[in-house]
Amino acid sequence: MSKSTVTACVILIGNEILSGRTQDANLHFLATGLTAIGIQLREARVIPDVEATIIETVNLCRERFDYVFTTGGIGPTHDDITADAVAKAFGVPLIRHPQAVAIMEARYESGQLNEARLKMADVPEGAALVANPVSGAPGFRIGNVYVFAGVPKIMQAMFDGIKAELVGGAPMLSRTIVAFMPEGTVADALRAVQERFAEVEMGSYPFYRSQRFGTSLVLRSSDTERLNEAVAALSEALAGLGGEFEEQTTPD
Amino acid sequence: MSKSTVTACVILIGNEILSGRTQDANLHFLATGLTAIGIQLREARVIPDVEATIIETVNLCRERFDYVFTTGGIGPTHDDITADAVAKAFGVPLIRHPQAVAIMEARYESGQLNEARLKMADVPEGAALVANPVSGAPGFRIGNVYVFAGVPKIMQAMFDGIKAELVGGAPMLSRTIVAFMPEGTVADALRAVQERFAEVEMGSYPFYRSQRFGTSLVLRSSDTERLNEAVAALSEALAGLGGEFEEQTTPD
Repeated sequence: MSKSTVTACVILIGNEILSGRTQDANLHFLATGLTAIGIQLREARVIPDVEATIIETVNLCRERFDYVFTTGGIGPTHDDITADAVAKAFGVPLIRHPQAVAIMEARYESGQLNEARLKMADVPEGAALVANPVSGAPGFRIGNVYVFAGVPKIMQAMFDGIKAELVGGAPMLSRTIVAFMPEGTVADALRAVQERFAEVEMGSYPFYRSQRFGTSLVLRSSDTERLNEAVAALSEALAGLGGEFEEQTTPD
Repeated sequence: MSKSTVTACVILIGNEILSGRTQDANLHFLATGLTAIGIQLREARVIPDVEATIIETVNLCRERFDYVFTTGGIGPTHDDITADAVAKAFGVPLIRHPQAVAIMEARYESGQLNEARLKMADVPEGAALVANPVSGAPGFRIGNVYVFAGVPKIMQAMFDGIKAELVGGAPMLSRTIVAFMPEGTVADALRAVQERFAEVEMGSYPFYRSQRFGTSLVLRSSDTERLNEAVAALSEALAGLGGEFEEQTTPD
């Protein structure tokens, strides 16, 4: 039997995101992908390639959330310390995984599979491999922690490969009303409707486009009936304000 | 006298980033801006609009880092709870700031400044206002915590406005060598050079462009002389591998 609420945390590991050298592209992909399968992403953290920080963060998050996904730090160079740190977080040794070695041997020509590349076959003892159809070197899962590469194309392929084994809760349904009124104008009406529908999460996002100020009102719930009732109630309240509004029928 | 190492943490507040509705654009801006003035961004967190989570995260981060920057949750709607949560984190009441009210009164026509908009003049007692030249409603600073809007254009203007009051440490200098060799080929040479230069942070970032695999090797340090020596040592090591490489002379 599945739980009604399943939670997740994403940990982005890499100095390059914190220094501004690299703009992260993985969080948005995972947020969208998890939401689509009924897993609520509750938190994300960006941390540096520092062993103590990785260990502390992984241990805290795996206790607190149903699933943890890390990206980054599993390549062949000295600054790739994620696999080793995750092994330490779980209190198990890092081992050279025979199947990972076989994958790498099949991929590299004789003489190319040096010690640095073989390091990518090291995973915490007891971990299951996560396939990397892009460049070979696998990720892994241990307990409720999935360890993915940081390169977006590889990370995405890894997530797509394991997605079917994730168990989501009731999917969050979402409806969006676009009101061509500033946020401060709709705020009171929105608050009043929110107070009547505690089980519907209502978010308000101002925009300025085609030279008009407006507000996207996003209503989310796992209860279809209440969601629809809330949209009806909000539409009525907005009509009372006299401004123009419409339901958004295309994705953001 | 300034400290040699000054640290910061960024807290992005908003359900919309975690649900995938919105792709965050603020982290990269702040990471780049802080690095440029000698402040090391050590961690970033994305958290939902949940009071207890905001309070816990703000209190933990303001203890641990020299500066904390939050984005999001200071608008006029019911889901904008950042100011209130930050007041609770500091154990002070939320007050209606007279100067913020004056700013809002000057901005809105008579009858437009409703209670929802006035909420944007509420800040923790003792906070200093942060100017918002884009849309009026200010951010604020309390202790070492800066609270900015989530809309990127407003957040950027707020940061640019307070930047001069931040005290950075020794700036991190950076040099990048682009090697047209796969990461696994350069890994051993890079590790050997890293071991000789502990005070130079060396990062390795694989790329694939113009149908060639390559690796960007980023060397960072606040010590110019050691940085230059490390670049020379790494160049010599790469030359020994026989592959092509060059120093990158333009920013990423």
